Amino acid sequence: SDQFARDQAEARNERLTKPLRALGRLDDLAIWMAGWQRTPKPTVDRPQIAIFAGNHGVTTARAVSAYPAEVTEQMVLNFQAGGAAINQIARSVGARLTVHAIDLHRPTADFTQGPAMTEEECVSALQIGWKAVEDGTDLFVAGEMGIGNTTAAAAIATALFGGSPCDWVGRGTGVDESGLLRKVEAVEAGLAVNPGARTNALEALRCLGGREIAAMAGSIARARVDSIPVILDGFICTAAAAVLARAVPGALDHVQAGHQSAEAAHRNMLLRLELDPLLTLGMRLGEGSGAAVAISVVRAAVACQSGMASFDEAGVTG
Amino acid sequence: SDQFARDQAEARNERLTKPLRALGRLDDLAIWMAGWQRTPKPTVDRPQIAIFAGNHGVTTARAVSAYPAEVTEQMVLNFQAGGAAINQIARSVGARLTVHAIDLHRPTADFTQGPAMTEEECVSALQIGWKAVEDGTDLFVAGEMGIGNTTAAAAIATALFGGSPCDWVGRGTGVDESGLLRKVEAVEAGLAVNPGARTNALEALRCLGGREIAAMAGSIARARVDSIPVILDGFICTAAAAVLARAVPGALDHVQAGHQSAEAAHRNMLLRLELDPLLTLGMRLGEGSGAAVAISVVRAAVACQSGMASFDEAGVTG
Repeated sequence: SDQFARDQAEARNERLTKPLRALGRLDDLAIWMAGWQRTPKPTVDRPQIAIFAGNHGVTTARAVSAYPAEVTEQMVLNFQAGGAAINQIARSVGARLTVHAIDLHRPTADFTQGPAMTEEECVSALQIGWKAVEDGTDLFVAGEMGIGNTTAAAAIATALFGGSPCDWVGRGTGVDESGLLRKVEAVEAGLAVNPGARTNALEALRCLGGREIAAMAGSIARARVDSIPVILDGFICTAAAAVLARAVPGALDHVQAGHQSAEAAHRNMLLRLELDPLLTLGMRLGEGSGAAVAISVVRAAVACQSGMASFDEAGVTG
Repeated sequence: SDQFARDQAEARNERLTKPLRALGRLDDLAIWMAGWQRTPKPTVDRPQIAIFAGNHGVTTARAVSAYPAEVTEQMVLNFQAGGAAINQIARSVGARLTVHAIDLHRPTADFTQGPAMTEEECVSALQIGWKAVEDGTDLFVAGEMGIGNTTAAAAIATALFGGSPCDWVGRGTGVDESGLLRKVEAVEAGLAVNPGARTNALEALRCLGGREIAAMAGSIARARVDSIPVILDGFICTAAAAVLARAVPGALDHVQAGHQSAEAAHRNMLLRLELDPLLTLGMRLGEGSGAAVAISVVRAAVACQSGMASFDEAGVTG
């Protein structure tokens, strides 16, 4: 973040025709955007939502989802045809949507038996994410689709943050009590068989994650390098971001939490990362949907910062 | 609200390509919109934000604001020139903005000395609000500008909900400790000299309110009659709505709270009205700004409800 641009943005913000900081979080967002875009008048003209899709060996091996694995691919077709929730939200907030299906016919290995991915597979997925961020993007959202991936994300969270699998496992798309138990057992088994995951964040990603989770991490890292601000989505997206936070200090400086998911452990994960969600709307869909709704909040923030008149310009007594 | 349309909307919602109710509050909003718009596929194509401005005798008589009374008119000119926060937010969410300055050179009477408005003045302001709602509006926001009007709103809240003036008085645009004390004393004096305000909600509006507050109440009532859904803004807008709620049971059935203001007593007022705010972003500006940001949330909700494919249409295993 560019401190000079932030200072300029602060100075501009103080002269705008409103009581000091009367826009609250919107003022904070505007100055945060200014720092990353290196201008006192930031924009949200070209937001991008990239959805990454992957399949998980654990899904069929341990029956951890309310939906069968083929739904991942069916939903990718739905994204491409424009029929999913994220298509409608992307249009309503004026964002480009790109869809990245990663080797759907080759699920990751069942992480209760060993690492989910080889190093090569994990690096390949990270690279897909890295390359997915398009030139000219001024605000980025990473979303995901992957039946079973709340189990993978809960396993990563347990590895990174400690505690018991019960602290991080939730209902996902809506499993019943026995499904919840299978998820907890899968995470326990995954951690037991992949001991390196507890001590190395990138090993947690490789051993317990999935291709779409690695790709999200790659895209968020790329945005950091290119100084593109990012809005995080829900539980799975935040688990991907948490890998980066644990691997590299400051890796999430360019990130805001868009939405606190109804997946219960998401709140705890955000607290651990010291992220304060912009929205809490009880969503639990993934696809980048919560972050996508938050795009409009950031756009309103930069619209005020960049478009408002100053007290002098408007002849208002300040 | 049309129960048949709600039922149709519920049935449609259950077939959309997402886990049941996975959009949380967005699903609720979509079905609420469907009921008021009488269609299972609601829209937000023509949202209107109407800003009402008025001046208050108590402002200069009791020095209850951090800003002088002439700022009301200066800000109206700023609205008309497109330089205020609400202009930028309205544009960013694609809403029409209409500005209604009401007798700015004739402030209400100082309510610490007697009723703020005559019956004729109050009815006239209600009518201005009533007429401000434009044909074809499919979502309505009432905003306000009026230096000193958090004091008027706190007085109305004390009259309607009881408790001490201290429970309802806050910092507004940013008064200091002595300003806060002057606000409390003004509310106390206003209630003492206008005893009818405690027992009759419309008398509370007339005796303690202002023209912009009455106009907001008139516009919200008109929207109710025309089945146009409304998003409430902050403390002052909610006080206007509270008058209706106390005067007529069900008067706010067509209302959602858009934003919980940083003005401390707003939360309490929303609790009394059993309204759950869509956003909590620390805003404390008025002008309809918090509700305007929430327009994009409602638009995302109806976009999903009305645009998504069903499981059958998309060939997704439900």
